[in-house]
Amino acid sequence: MNGAESLVRTLVNAGVEVCFTNPGTSEMHFVAALDRVPGMRCVLGLFEGVVTGAADGYARMKDKPASTLLHLGPGLGNGLANLHNARKAQTPVVNIVGDHATYHVEHDAPLTADVEGIAWPVSAWVRTSRDARSVAADGAEAVAAAWTRPGQVATLILPADTAWEDSDGPAGMPAIPEPPRVAEDRIKSVAAVLRSGEPTVILMAGRVLRADGLAISGAIAAATGARVIGQMSNARLERGAGRFTIDRVPYPVDQALAMLEGVKNIVLVGAKAPVAFFGYPDKPSRLWPQDCAVHTLAEPREDMLHALEWLAEELSAPRDGALLQSPALPPLPADGPLDIDSIACAVGALLPENAIVADEAIGSGRGLHPYTLGSPPHDWLQICGGAIGLGVPMATGAAVACPHRKVIGLQADGSAMYTLQGLWTQAREGLDVTTVLFANRAYASLKHELFNVGARNPGRKALDMLEIGRPDLDWVSLARGMGVEAGRATSNAEFIRELRAGLASEGPYLIEAVI
Amino acid sequence: MNGAESLVRTLVNAGVEVCFTNPGTSEMHFVAALDRVPGMRCVLGLFEGVVTGAADGYARMKDKPASTLLHLGPGLGNGLANLHNARKAQTPVVNIVGDHATYHVEHDAPLTADVEGIAWPVSAWVRTSRDARSVAADGAEAVAAAWTRPGQVATLILPADTAWEDSDGPAGMPAIPEPPRVAEDRIKSVAAVLRSGEPTVILMAGRVLRADGLAISGAIAAATGARVIGQMSNARLERGAGRFTIDRVPYPVDQALAMLEGVKNIVLVGAKAPVAFFGYPDKPSRLWPQDCAVHTLAEPREDMLHALEWLAEELSAPRDGALLQSPALPPLPADGPLDIDSIACAVGALLPENAIVADEAIGSGRGLHPYTLGSPPHDWLQICGGAIGLGVPMATGAAVACPHRKVIGLQADGSAMYTLQGLWTQAREGLDVTTVLFANRAYASLKHELFNVGARNPGRKALDMLEIGRPDLDWVSLARGMGVEAGRATSNAEFIRELRAGLASEGPYLIEAVI
Repeated sequence: MNGAESLVRTLVNAGVEVCFTNPGTSEMHFVAALDRVPGMRCVLGLFEGVVTGAADGYARMKDKPASTLLHLGPGLGNGLANLHNARKAQTPVVNIVGDHATYHVEHDAPLTADVEGIAWPVSAWVRTSRDARSVAADGAEAVAAAWTRPGQVATLILPADTAWEDSDGPAGMPAIPEPPRVAEDRIKSVAAVLRSGEPTVILMAGRVLRADGLAISGAIAAATGARVIGQMSNARLERGAGRFTIDRVPYPVDQALAMLEGVKNIVLVGAKAPVAFFGYPDKPSRLWPQDCAVHTLAEPREDMLHALEWLAEELSAPRDGALLQSPALPPLPADGPLDIDSIACAVGALLPENAIVADEAIGSGRGLHPYTLGSPPHDWLQICGGAIGLGVPMATGAAVACPHRKVIGLQADGSAMYTLQGLWTQAREGLDVTTVLFANRAYASLKHELFNVGARNPGRKALDMLEIGRPDLDWVSLARGMGVEAGRATSNAEFIRELRAGLASEGPYLIEAVI
Repeated sequence: MNGAESLVRTLVNAGVEVCFTNPGTSEMHFVAALDRVPGMRCVLGLFEGVVTGAADGYARMKDKPASTLLHLGPGLGNGLANLHNARKAQTPVVNIVGDHATYHVEHDAPLTADVEGIAWPVSAWVRTSRDARSVAADGAEAVAAAWTRPGQVATLILPADTAWEDSDGPAGMPAIPEPPRVAEDRIKSVAAVLRSGEPTVILMAGRVLRADGLAISGAIAAATGARVIGQMSNARLERGAGRFTIDRVPYPVDQALAMLEGVKNIVLVGAKAPVAFFGYPDKPSRLWPQDCAVHTLAEPREDMLHALEWLAEELSAPRDGALLQSPALPPLPADGPLDIDSIACAVGALLPENAIVADEAIGSGRGLHPYTLGSPPHDWLQICGGAIGLGVPMATGAAVACPHRKVIGLQADGSAMYTLQGLWTQAREGLDVTTVLFANRAYASLKHELFNVGARNPGRKALDMLEIGRPDLDWVSLARGMGVEAGRATSNAEFIRELRAGLASEGPYLIEAVI
């Protein structure tokens, strides 16, 4: 058994079931081994940003890592932006990056690069395998590193000869430590804060944004009057009818400051104290008031759910005390010109139960949240690292993870262009993804930002850099060019018809919503 | 004048005339400054790989750097693969990478990343501006670093507040040292080698592959019997009728070994001693014979043309002694099924004078060289770093640099998918690029490589990772979706008709050549 096969067997034994790939010559032995080892699904992406973004979307829904297969330094480079997003989302990912044979590196061939140097800025764990007999153990450690709470990016660099030389067979998995429980004094001191009656916000992120964590936080809120909110962007939020609904910290600095005005205590559960997405002249970076104290109940690496349960008990908050969201659908919009609100209404009205929403709608999507509060229960996935170009791949990966759930991509057009190749993977794999493409033909957010940063009165050149029309992108052609069925909507009636068609389809469908 | 404007003025004063951009919030002041400062053309790319690849193509044709404008660590990451290619091509590029305001970095907002860490693996020079008053001088140093022979990637990181705070105005350019001349003893010793009568190869790369350097090398070859060859991949090779024609080191290891068999001396002029692109089991990494001596006439940082001239003089080789290529066109292929050879014939027969060929045809393109030897004089640009996804952007940048020359993209389909967004930039800028898209619907090279690395008998899963059909990409739809006129050819007659249409067009045109 060669090193590549020992690695594939190690990954499969450790529960890694999917490999998102964009391989090259150095990875051919790994690719060949995938055929000899059952249990690993291979999903090809035609660009590495698709591969890494799909691995992120997959792991968010499966709560376990996928592997990626990337081709040397430049292949890893192409996947870097979405690995940045995965790192910020605390998603477990195991990257396998092929490299030149160990003895070939010194010759500085065209593809030779500092692969470890490229990997470190996005990885919590990086290793280059020394020889074929080390590969399996290295792979097991990579999986363990990825799985370490709350979830990390691990990058294993696999020189070609370590893949083709003889190995000693697969390795067992190192134990992954259970997340530590928080100490009693933290529970006691946060309980005291909550009992104080001062205006208090519980700011949550990570795994506690699932139904169970939300319900307990809602019970604590009901018992104490505290307000529960989520971070600006969250890896996965379970919401809709029957769940405890929370707001999120808004993106615009002034709105965030208004939300937190007068708050005297912020209790962090897996979250960081809230900061502005960007720094702006004359606006603060920190969003909480000067006289507000910040307390940590639990860090992301700790057992956050247990901490919430313990806190509820300490406060004698009844476990079923949360005020849960009632079902409530917005009305389908009457026919008329399509706009962001009518799209939001239609999506809220038609969202299927158990849908997964992959949200990269950016500016166009900020109105969507209220309209879907009372829709059937669903998961909402966002970009946590701010690097646009995650949406299409994330939807792709989520659909691979959950073949029996409908995935809805809410997708800004500018962002979609970074990784549009993901549509082809949706077509090849027959994935059940309906993409609502907000075609405003501009980097619309940037137009606001131009003013926010004080660069007023832009001229033609500047505006040209913020418009992505001239020529307009034809998303129906682009989708069909990659084998994805598509339609265009310019009115509410057309949009509702197209959305119904997408939802009725079992494969990928794209709606160009011209707004 | 704020820091951003001081930087733009510095760049313009230093001769940087084009900025390929994909900006975000942190770059808004730079964008706004572009409107206040005449002399800098802005070209928007919808993905950063387009931006960096276009900067590479531009500088190869202009012999001076363009600037790029990129958005924080992830934006730089998206541009990394083509910066790797630029680094290996020794192309001058000045990257301006926006970052968070200096005081905002500590808050670890979503887009915060180790920008310098991402930049170093592809850059010879990296600096983060400290404050607005340093920006102009930093920009001047970046241009000087980029321009340092033979050409380098320089990355200036511009925190948002250094762009919006007050500056002291633009900076002057630091002097760029002239390339040093080689010492006489090198000329003498190489002349002795060439006089020895032993089988000798002169291996050239870089600036000496222009008509003047080639003619002198041809004169030396005629006088001494030495053979002149180029590296496997070259940034820019002037060839065609009236030029001195050279072969290149072939990609397949066995062919390269055969070419160099029996050679006793290799004289390097800006080149490295030839090595295999990849390491393979049971094949050598170094391609020259054990008993062959390697001599350096001139390094890339030195005045290579002067060294060649001096050597010719030392050898009393008449300056006009080179055997120049006679005009000779292949016949237009008769109608019949389209294949690689008939495409090569048609391109060779119809190639316009002064065309620029951007070659990312990979396997499909290896047959093209002989058919174009006697075509009218033209430039041939290749990928020097092996990171596919350069072709479309490189053609884009070359067309921006040379608006009065026809650019022909010879483009493999698999590679084109990495940066297909570049077609939109061609449409927006009305660039005169005709792309011949070799639609073989596979990573065809990888199928050979699977066997070359000894991973024989691939199964269905492995083959699935090497085929990019199922579904087939429809390149006519993809091109039209981005505003580029396009047609499909499945026969020789259709291909000739489409190629003539593309050549007659003054804007971008794509031909899906189904092979």
